[in-house]
Amino acid sequence: MVDILHKVGVQAPPAAVFAALTTVEGLAGWWTTDTRGRGDDPGGVLEFRFGPGGIDMKVVELAAGRRVTWEVVGGPEEWIGTRVEWRLEPDQDYTGVLFAHRGWREPVEFMHHCSTKWATYLMSLKSLIETGTGAPDPHDVKVDNWN
Amino acid sequence: MVDILHKVGVQAPPAAVFAALTTVEGLAGWWTTDTRGRGDDPGGVLEFRFGPGGIDMKVVELAAGRRVTWEVVGGPEEWIGTRVEWRLEPDQDYTGVLFAHRGWREPVEFMHHCSTKWATYLMSLKSLIETGTGAPDPHDVKVDNWN
Repeated sequence: MVDILHKVGVQAPPAAVFAALTTVEGLAGWWTTDTRGRGDDPGGVLEFRFGPGGIDMKVVELAAGRRVTWEVVGGPEEWIGTRVEWRLEPDQDYTGVLFAHRGWREPVEFMHHCSTKWATYLMSLKSLIETGTGAPDPHDVKVDNWN
Repeated sequence: MVDILHKVGVQAPPAAVFAALTTVEGLAGWWTTDTRGRGDDPGGVLEFRFGPGGIDMKVVELAAGRRVTWEVVGGPEEWIGTRVEWRLEPDQDYTGVLFAHRGWREPVEFMHHCSTKWATYLMSLKSLIETGTGAPDPHDVKVDNWN
């Protein structure tokens, strides 16, 4: 099992980052404009639709202002059963956002792609909160000829 | 042992990417403007200096247009002895750049930071080759309050 790990620091309180991870409006501002479902309730399912396909996430853990965990219940075969974890840690004027996409079975080329793509979406999250403008799909940063 | 993995696709032939990974001029265009040493010879050492510190890489493997491997011989304690591998794979008009920074002893917070930071530098490499302008230190993209 291998994990994708990232960190960004967002110049805002943890509550602002938590809102961007748990509300449809927030998620649509940095990940994909086509976001539906419930992200503010354990057991809720979020449906994310992108140009290249869709991902469904079940909310498995929420700790207000501190932690969000999703389980992938729909999407690319390599993603099914993996978990996406967000830990928020205040540090002076910043909120440290510690991100993990855990449980990949193999370090395939698609995992390399997804790691870089996650980084660009985390920078989109940071930008959304700090400036009001993110870069969600279909306005996302393209990293290679896949997406 | 845990690894950082990434992929970008560069719209250029493998030789252009290989040059940006093995010449001081190329490396200074996307990673840090303060780059010295030899990157085009196995056994050569490259000295990279950044605002937050320095990294020395020994070139351990070169396969023209296909592969570059460095070993970290100077820099942050967590980096010493780790390896940075670049694999170049042509795919139609693109060169797929498969990146790995292997051999981290623990998935510490600094590793999360470095993973995101590598992604921004890989996007800088892509931009340098495709547009002529990268974002090397000190013009690099800041991801958090560390750098």
